[in-house]
Amino acid sequence: MTTTSSIYRQNSTKTMIYFDNAATSYPKPEEAQAEVINVMKHFGGNPGRGGYAFAKETSQYMDNARKEIADFLAVNPYKNLLFTSGATEGANVVLKSCLKRGEHLIYTGAEHNATGRPVKWLESAGIETSKVPISGEKETDLKAFEALIRNNTRLFVVNHGSNVFGYVQPLPEIIALAKRYGILVFADMAQTAGFLDFDVAASGLDFACFAGHKSLMGYGGIGLLYVRDPILIRPLIHGGTGSMSRLLNQPVVLPSGFEAGTRNLIGVGSLLGGVRYLKKQTLAAVREHERALTKRFLAGLRELPQVMIYEVGKEKTRLPVVSLNIRDYAPGDVAALLEEKANICVRAGLHCAPLAHETIGTSAAGTVRFSFGVFNSEAEVDVALSVLSVIK
Amino acid sequence: MTTTSSIYRQNSTKTMIYFDNAATSYPKPEEAQAEVINVMKHFGGNPGRGGYAFAKETSQYMDNARKEIADFLAVNPYKNLLFTSGATEGANVVLKSCLKRGEHLIYTGAEHNATGRPVKWLESAGIETSKVPISGEKETDLKAFEALIRNNTRLFVVNHGSNVFGYVQPLPEIIALAKRYGILVFADMAQTAGFLDFDVAASGLDFACFAGHKSLMGYGGIGLLYVRDPILIRPLIHGGTGSMSRLLNQPVVLPSGFEAGTRNLIGVGSLLGGVRYLKKQTLAAVREHERALTKRFLAGLRELPQVMIYEVGKEKTRLPVVSLNIRDYAPGDVAALLEEKANICVRAGLHCAPLAHETIGTSAAGTVRFSFGVFNSEAEVDVALSVLSVIK
Repeated sequence: MTTTSSIYRQNSTKTMIYFDNAATSYPKPEEAQAEVINVMKHFGGNPGRGGYAFAKETSQYMDNARKEIADFLAVNPYKNLLFTSGATEGANVVLKSCLKRGEHLIYTGAEHNATGRPVKWLESAGIETSKVPISGEKETDLKAFEALIRNNTRLFVVNHGSNVFGYVQPLPEIIALAKRYGILVFADMAQTAGFLDFDVAASGLDFACFAGHKSLMGYGGIGLLYVRDPILIRPLIHGGTGSMSRLLNQPVVLPSGFEAGTRNLIGVGSLLGGVRYLKKQTLAAVREHERALTKRFLAGLRELPQVMIYEVGKEKTRLPVVSLNIRDYAPGDVAALLEEKANICVRAGLHCAPLAHETIGTSAAGTVRFSFGVFNSEAEVDVALSVLSVIK
Repeated sequence: MTTTSSIYRQNSTKTMIYFDNAATSYPKPEEAQAEVINVMKHFGGNPGRGGYAFAKETSQYMDNARKEIADFLAVNPYKNLLFTSGATEGANVVLKSCLKRGEHLIYTGAEHNATGRPVKWLESAGIETSKVPISGEKETDLKAFEALIRNNTRLFVVNHGSNVFGYVQPLPEIIALAKRYGILVFADMAQTAGFLDFDVAASGLDFACFAGHKSLMGYGGIGLLYVRDPILIRPLIHGGTGSMSRLLNQPVVLPSGFEAGTRNLIGVGSLLGGVRYLKKQTLAAVREHERALTKRFLAGLRELPQVMIYEVGKEKTRLPVVSLNIRDYAPGDVAALLEEKANICVRAGLHCAPLAHETIGTSAAGTVRFSFGVFNSEAEVDVALSVLSVIK
């Protein structure tokens, strides 16, 4: 990851600069690919379903993977970490089962549609909701949170790190506030896991969802849900669990009660491979690398008067995600120019997060988003700056 | 598939005879593995999310895969075929959104927990339910269905082919009956797709769910949901769709409105590879091969007086799934003996389908289930018969 050479797309003769890691990381590390192949070659049978050795070995593989990934995410006990089809499923499980009609939740102005849309849906199901604004100033935001608490407030829904402007919310302080009022906390860690260190088990957090295919370096279709106590939620998807099959009522045991149907074992493998890659690199080194790229990019941007950068909070704690616009160019036009001139891949528009765009005042057209990953280099950042400098 | 040599497990020196294909097919065809590797090597970016060429190519790959798989399943228009995390998710989407409180559904005595548990959950949500018994005799069963119809009956929930006793329900006739009364039909095709020919689009069926990892020969974690008209259902999982991102309300467009979050693209690849393998073999040839194995097995079993076979319906239309018991042996003990003596993998117990066991009177302990796949051979069937013959 410390190489300064550009990343070449494997199936192309043309250099590609991939700055869309907040949508999904690319490329994936060799370890992720190798582990998918390992699963395909050496495992089979349906985990949790068969009594014969082959199926049991496969179940054991899944159990070990859960343990190793839980350890990496500081989740304990490891069976409280559930494999889902992605962060979105995890958010839906929690949001649609932990509140009763008439209760109240507070969500933030940084939410992605993975939480924003379930929250909107909950309104139609008789749940009261309030949006807390994001100023980027910790004390202000905590006071704003506290001001919205009602007698019936049951849950805080907190985007840990924004996929639009990279701001990291003060989750420990938010949890502390919630605990003072006996309120539960759900954190959307889709953007932060695999980048920030966060001790989930020690934090007092009640729920967290994770995406496998972003900074955790796995492939799409696998995610995780942490639940401190399963009594707080109910399964969203009912079906065969390989456990207590006689019951037509879904058994609420961890993890199988929340993992109905046959799991995505090759996805689990890819996530395990991704986590092993990160362990080898160390999260601190990954973070330092991506922060250095972000800092270099922001410094370069500040030299360009035509660029409007959307900054929330302090630079040093942010994610490697930068949203910008250039004068009155449509974001899509800037993205198209970046691709045309230097094969740079960035995302333009709303990035599935209209609430975050309300916060930075870009709801109409969105932004151009650059998001750096472990395989990006300073040279690539410089190419982007050089192209941006000529768009005036 | 016409080879008579035994299948060797790739990571073992010991021959393994895998007769648990109804749980998940094993091994997977080379095509499925190769397509997963193809996706990992050549695609990236988040399908449906980026405006740059690389993400668009990946979106195009997913779109083409959907088209090719829809064509194979006779689904039309192809965008009405949704990628899910498995058959279970598809069943949950339909069952939990197409009925209103106070309406009535009829389900069958062959349901798997993938439909049985959502149905049970619906009872707690104010939906009336009735179970239609399965006799295996078409006219009797159709009359039983009809007798249960009420003024408020909205839906039939029909297991197309049983994962316990292999009986194939007369779906075209059931659909015709439903249409006469203006009732919707949901079919669970987890066991039949990739084995039976069924023209989904022409059938008049309203909904069907499919498992990618059974006879369709992909890996776990990918499935399909067919919906004739999206107006009939609502998404179960709300989140980012890459479409109409400004809306906090989930857009109900096909397919993205029902595919919130990042899809399992390597899973899609595996399913596409599996389908291509089946197209090459032809379904007719696959069916002939697996039926021949089933017939040979049943003929051998009939020579063994200690074996109780659970047969429902006519032999010639059944799936390659056979449930049996031997005198008063516990099913788990028979399975253990089969493994000990000849490394035969079968499943013992309830197979996540207690309703089906009520039908054949094996609710207490379940059965020993043999399920044949495209890579099984006559020689393997003979080994199983020979082991069974000495368990007395």
